[in-house]
Amino acid sequence: MTHRLRGPVRIVGTGLLGTSIGLGLAARGVEVQLADASPTAMRLAADYGAGRPAEPGDAPELIVVAVPPDVTAQVVAAELAAFPEAVVTDVASVKAVPLQELRAMGADVSRYLGSHPMAGRERSGALAGSGDLFVGRPWVIAGHDGISYARGSLVDDLILDLGAVPIESSPEDHDRAVAIVSHVPQLVSSLMAARLADAPDEALRLAGGGVRDVTRVAASDPALWIQILGANAPAVVEQLRALQGDLAAVVDALDDVDASGSRRAIADALAAGNEGVGRLPGKHGTHARYVPVQIRVDDRPGQLARLLADIGDAEVNLEDVRLDHAEGAQFGVAEITVLPEAVRPLHDALEERGWQVVA
Amino acid sequence: MTHRLRGPVRIVGTGLLGTSIGLGLAARGVEVQLADASPTAMRLAADYGAGRPAEPGDAPELIVVAVPPDVTAQVVAAELAAFPEAVVTDVASVKAVPLQELRAMGADVSRYLGSHPMAGRERSGALAGSGDLFVGRPWVIAGHDGISYARGSLVDDLILDLGAVPIESSPEDHDRAVAIVSHVPQLVSSLMAARLADAPDEALRLAGGGVRDVTRVAASDPALWIQILGANAPAVVEQLRALQGDLAAVVDALDDVDASGSRRAIADALAAGNEGVGRLPGKHGTHARYVPVQIRVDDRPGQLARLLADIGDAEVNLEDVRLDHAEGAQFGVAEITVLPEAVRPLHDALEERGWQVVA
Repeated sequence: MTHRLRGPVRIVGTGLLGTSIGLGLAARGVEVQLADASPTAMRLAADYGAGRPAEPGDAPELIVVAVPPDVTAQVVAAELAAFPEAVVTDVASVKAVPLQELRAMGADVSRYLGSHPMAGRERSGALAGSGDLFVGRPWVIAGHDGISYARGSLVDDLILDLGAVPIESSPEDHDRAVAIVSHVPQLVSSLMAARLADAPDEALRLAGGGVRDVTRVAASDPALWIQILGANAPAVVEQLRALQGDLAAVVDALDDVDASGSRRAIADALAAGNEGVGRLPGKHGTHARYVPVQIRVDDRPGQLARLLADIGDAEVNLEDVRLDHAEGAQFGVAEITVLPEAVRPLHDALEERGWQVVA
Repeated sequence: MTHRLRGPVRIVGTGLLGTSIGLGLAARGVEVQLADASPTAMRLAADYGAGRPAEPGDAPELIVVAVPPDVTAQVVAAELAAFPEAVVTDVASVKAVPLQELRAMGADVSRYLGSHPMAGRERSGALAGSGDLFVGRPWVIAGHDGISYARGSLVDDLILDLGAVPIESSPEDHDRAVAIVSHVPQLVSSLMAARLADAPDEALRLAGGGVRDVTRVAASDPALWIQILGANAPAVVEQLRALQGDLAAVVDALDDVDASGSRRAIADALAAGNEGVGRLPGKHGTHARYVPVQIRVDDRPGQLARLLADIGDAEVNLEDVRLDHAEGAQFGVAEITVLPEAVRPLHDALEERGWQVVA
């Protein structure tokens, strides 16, 4: 495989992200040196194939700091001091605070360029790592004026070598953006899920796909999210205050639903939601909206495969596929999302092959 | 096909639900009589196969009122008066208000038993209807003391004939339950999505699976939801006030994140979310948590089918399957959710067949 980085690359912190970066670079032939505050964790990542243990005398070209957000600046500063020739990046989910802290410490930020891969999962640790974790995912570079183009381009090379899509941003814009598309959705999901914590069992039996979608990310690790939210508190609070205002308007309207303007206020909130969700980019960067087609699928191994094979035969490309099962049901409904122009041919092709197209 | 209802069944309102009920019953050999305030809508449903137009002299055994929530009680009362031998049910998403209204009107509730199928979608109208819409879905019967067992059992028969799962509840318990698992999640999703409405394009480019999940149902029809929320306002407001309290605690904590107790307050909110989402029932009524396995899938027709065929060959049964694509990516990641004990065999079987298991 080819790579842009010459290397070697030193990775500090061998959790999910550090290990995944190591695996991805090692698979492309880059020399990777691994370090971790826990020698056991480092050894595990090395055994897993993410690189070799760091040694005295190592001279990395690029250092990737992949430690928890609340110690990121401190570790970056130590690396800048220990390796005066190396460029250092980090992968923390917040970008303004670490840069401020580094400047306050007097660290040499002419060799530091923070970044943030938009890839993660609910699982953590080296064994959840994969060299493909970043493939096709956005990876933000939080640019600043203190670093030269030549040095910064090493971080571009890292991102491209891992198959990710570099996106330039200022640290402040990045933090505001992830507040909106990641941190606030996480909190909203957690707050909604908390309503389920003391709900009657009978209520939970009625749960369908909607509440499952809304609460899915509420399963994330609190320990990590406290750090992320704490480090991006101002941007998150700004969004949450706007949310509080909108929520209060809905509560007021529902509290006196027959008052003049109440139904209009609720309609406005729902319409704003329509507009917002419509702005999320679709696959391949388009804003096109896709259309769901629902097909009955028996709950037996191979049924969904047969359906998707038939869809493949019909030369229809899927945007998304989801399975929906109700409690107590022995079969479910597959929702296939396709481009609008594919709905009719898909419908016909599936019915011809004996599938029950529900809608 | 067999059926429990003798029929005939009269359906008033030939939108998505009425048409779907008609299609399901007609396919099972039950005589279905269709009525709608719009003769055009009724004719469309009849042409679609949902039954025949109602005629003078019809003597239905059971009447299903499937009209918008805000006119449900009025239409039910008219049907009770027009057909003094028939049992009447409705399918509105709220149950306490229609029963109160009927009693206030002096309607003969000894022949009325409200119900609510937990099946719907973002699309509406007769042509989105399907006789399979209710298969395997919960369908609440909102019991009350004024109707005899013999009469009420006709509604059970309807539900069972349509393949749904009858769940008994009081109207009040039903309304509180759907506030928690349907109405509040809808509003929370809309309010979150509204935050995206004026977000910068650059922020939206960073959107991943989390925000998509949280905002998916925000695409629902405002006109219908105003009626649903309006008719269940007290139960929804009760939940929203609790949500406001939790949200205020998080905002206060984030607003002074280094104060004593702030991080603990955020952790508590996140942990409550963990607990709540963990209570959602899994497939087949179990509370087991499933485990995700992620596999790289090229973005070509047939690739996902090939993957799922290989999973079927491995005799592994899927709980869920999802595709995740990043903007600009030419391929994505399929997340297969399976029982914990299936992870290892699935992993091995897929790698053996040349798939890249990401985690």
